[in-house]
Amino acid sequence: MAVIAQRQGDHRPALHFTPRTGFMNDPNGLVYTKGVWHLYYQLDDQQLVAGRPEWGHATSTDLLHWKRHEKAIKAPSEHESIWSGCCVLDCNNTSGQFDESTGPDDRIVAIFTLHTQGHQTQNVAFSSDGGYTFTGHKHNPVLDIGWADFRDPKVLWHAPSNQWVMVVAKCHQFKIGFYSSPDLIHWHHLSDFEGSGVRGYQYEMPNLVQVPFDDDNQRKKWVLFLSVGPGAPLGGSFTQYFLGEFDGTIFTSDDHYLRTADLGKDWYAAQTWFNSPDGQAYGIGWASNWQYCNRVPAERYRSAMSLPRKFSIREVPLNEATKSLSLISRPVDLNIVRMASDDMPIAFTHGSANVKPSTEVIYQRHMRGSGSFEFKLKIKSGTSSAGVLVDIANPSGHSVRLDFVVEREGMFISMDRGGIRTGSSWHHPLFDDKVCMWVPNTQSIYDVHVIVDAYVCELFAMDGAYAFTNTFFLQDGVASILSVSQDTAGTEVFDVHELCPLQRDR
Amino acid sequence: MAVIAQRQGDHRPALHFTPRTGFMNDPNGLVYTKGVWHLYYQLDDQQLVAGRPEWGHATSTDLLHWKRHEKAIKAPSEHESIWSGCCVLDCNNTSGQFDESTGPDDRIVAIFTLHTQGHQTQNVAFSSDGGYTFTGHKHNPVLDIGWADFRDPKVLWHAPSNQWVMVVAKCHQFKIGFYSSPDLIHWHHLSDFEGSGVRGYQYEMPNLVQVPFDDDNQRKKWVLFLSVGPGAPLGGSFTQYFLGEFDGTIFTSDDHYLRTADLGKDWYAAQTWFNSPDGQAYGIGWASNWQYCNRVPAERYRSAMSLPRKFSIREVPLNEATKSLSLISRPVDLNIVRMASDDMPIAFTHGSANVKPSTEVIYQRHMRGSGSFEFKLKIKSGTSSAGVLVDIANPSGHSVRLDFVVEREGMFISMDRGGIRTGSSWHHPLFDDKVCMWVPNTQSIYDVHVIVDAYVCELFAMDGAYAFTNTFFLQDGVASILSVSQDTAGTEVFDVHELCPLQRDR
Repeated sequence: MAVIAQRQGDHRPALHFTPRTGFMNDPNGLVYTKGVWHLYYQLDDQQLVAGRPEWGHATSTDLLHWKRHEKAIKAPSEHESIWSGCCVLDCNNTSGQFDESTGPDDRIVAIFTLHTQGHQTQNVAFSSDGGYTFTGHKHNPVLDIGWADFRDPKVLWHAPSNQWVMVVAKCHQFKIGFYSSPDLIHWHHLSDFEGSGVRGYQYEMPNLVQVPFDDDNQRKKWVLFLSVGPGAPLGGSFTQYFLGEFDGTIFTSDDHYLRTADLGKDWYAAQTWFNSPDGQAYGIGWASNWQYCNRVPAERYRSAMSLPRKFSIREVPLNEATKSLSLISRPVDLNIVRMASDDMPIAFTHGSANVKPSTEVIYQRHMRGSGSFEFKLKIKSGTSSAGVLVDIANPSGHSVRLDFVVEREGMFISMDRGGIRTGSSWHHPLFDDKVCMWVPNTQSIYDVHVIVDAYVCELFAMDGAYAFTNTFFLQDGVASILSVSQDTAGTEVFDVHELCPLQRDR
Repeated sequence: MAVIAQRQGDHRPALHFTPRTGFMNDPNGLVYTKGVWHLYYQLDDQQLVAGRPEWGHATSTDLLHWKRHEKAIKAPSEHESIWSGCCVLDCNNTSGQFDESTGPDDRIVAIFTLHTQGHQTQNVAFSSDGGYTFTGHKHNPVLDIGWADFRDPKVLWHAPSNQWVMVVAKCHQFKIGFYSSPDLIHWHHLSDFEGSGVRGYQYEMPNLVQVPFDDDNQRKKWVLFLSVGPGAPLGGSFTQYFLGEFDGTIFTSDDHYLRTADLGKDWYAAQTWFNSPDGQAYGIGWASNWQYCNRVPAERYRSAMSLPRKFSIREVPLNEATKSLSLISRPVDLNIVRMASDDMPIAFTHGSANVKPSTEVIYQRHMRGSGSFEFKLKIKSGTSSAGVLVDIANPSGHSVRLDFVVEREGMFISMDRGGIRTGSSWHHPLFDDKVCMWVPNTQSIYDVHVIVDAYVCELFAMDGAYAFTNTFFLQDGVASILSVSQDTAGTEVFDVHELCPLQRDR
């Protein structure tokens, strides 16, 4: 039952960031400065499975085109590794570690976990060149409570209390520690947040951020992201979040309901960017799952990030009686990568309600083979079992399938990513071949936006109220054929675009 | 995409209760009296999909052999239906509805939801013959708050406050209403419990019960079961539970963590028996899921109950630092149905750690074809990826597969119930072909008990700390071949028994 690396196919995602070689997991150190979005990430470039991570580094000016750089932070010895953490812009030199020759926007401080066998501590490193090279603080660690599982610091500047605030996972105690500092070096314990929802095996990757409301950008809500796994419902790892208040000392959750940031299997370790230029909340997740991340097909590297997302807050109806304040997730603006030609919006309304299931293709489009495209659907809500079927196929006829099954109370969205009908995809006992989510029937139309990029499929429904990110691994090349069938009237397929980066750095 | 009824195969489960004809869902009215366990259930005997339920009825003296009876409660008109509810034994005639000619142990009162379009009310009916026939109260409903979704009353006698207490779902408001009554007829609102964990689309089927501790039967804990769906993580319906205190007025949850009563897809609407003879907590769930219950293969009837379970409370380690008070689930004693012949316990320890994956069968056993059997495994915990593979096959070679994948931090248990390798099972977009759970590595041995019965597989791990119930639908007959392979040393297969009821009532 031991599983070895398998063929990943020829294509990398066009828009989803991937490392050049090695095993990638959590996004780290997300910071924006001087027009550049920095993405660091857990990287073991010596093997294709999780091992001894350091910080890989990439930058982008638009969150869609990424340029890879040299490793930003390396382990000081072979017995140590650099686990997850964050970066902040210390423009006011609170740390006292920068001199006047370093411009305020170049003063980047990384706060990260140094891991040794049986011991994890929080450490800092300083960059005077805007995040490309770092020097470790001479008095590291800056925070050590003597624990084996104490990691993943995320730091923000809390203006009302004029201090830096760190959230960090006390993983096996199921607590999120809150610490404060005037200088990023001396840390003081503020409080512990106990969380609710799923505990699983451990807490990881907390992220505290203020997120604007959808209808009022000036109004914001504190969101605490928390990654949990293994032991999520049905086995793997996932990202939950809490909405609440933070007073500079204590985070108080509004309620104790489980809120899931993405209902798919492959969106973990979510983090947000420090210092976004417009004050909005931008974030990214790792598009894999500890249930199978070491086993999925791979040749030179393993795993991708999700597309960056812009988050907001909105009330979402759960049924006709109850609304719930929720995190809204939308992919960043894709306009610059939408191909201009052959891009006429397509609307299709089927006239007959008696079409045989799955037999009539109402819309088919052949792409140029990049494996990267998007489409949108509007599906009429209804009272009877009916729906829409989307096949995403490659030229060999191998496909993944999305089924939208409309029922009275809501719509199930099922993804068959295991090629069960065709045997066309990669299998593993721990890789769920079917994944399913559910959207309640609270509006007359279900809106769906799907982005397919090599082996990553991100689906957003109800204007970002539901996100559903799942990987899939087709045999014989990436998908380039989109087919949509339906067995009820009223579905529209539109905004079908091939997505093509202007410059690829593969 | 419309799905019609499909072949169920020749075999019903031998031990899991099934209705003779029609569509069954929630267990109702669980009550024990005069040596008889009564099981009522939601039944539409006119069709194979959920429709207009009434109360079916079956009885057992051992929780394994069931005798079906006439419908116990029928809808008074075609515009009404009898939804879920409970029974209590009113031996002291608190209701005043029984005369002296009715023995105390024959005085059964049913409290159930009467459903009409847009309106649900709580109603009572009385049985003077120990639960076989019921007469509706002349002043029904006994509880009406004018709501469309207000249902599933479960009543217990709360001795300290000398009153009947009802828990009932305010489904779309995500509240559990607590009501009290001196006589089962006049009900007074006590409080609402808001719950935590998953909300999904709605709350259903609350059940409040005192459950004894594993190591001290005199010490008990209040457990509030709550069924939720659709909208459970990954789409369907499931049963969560809360541990807490109940003072006769208010239920207070000990904490706000999500606790899942069964990690499989097919254990919903759990209820416990009123008046169990030994004061222990016995319960049962519906072995299906609203994600696909109307679509699974069926000919004359659809769906089964789980095996009855005995519940207890025990601290379960989540990792090396944290224990969690948890519901322990064990199947009722199967000794009387274990076949006597060919029943020598079998222990097998493999000597080599270098066996090729999936190639060496360490144990194989052919059953007699009833489709009902059990086995136990002891799997050594470890630090590397390795594991055990169990094939449960029918004579045509079609099989479902259980994979036990041992990792450093725990063990994944995956069930391939879609016949992905062989195409041997029923498929549907909404039927998850792979299901997976996770057990943390907190002991040197993982113990597993699996019961297979036609199309229901119930798995219990770590002495009842984890339950995992899933249906599967093999082509060409029930399973009768058990094969176990491993790729590491130290697994034991033992207590392999065919299970055969003494008298079958199919």
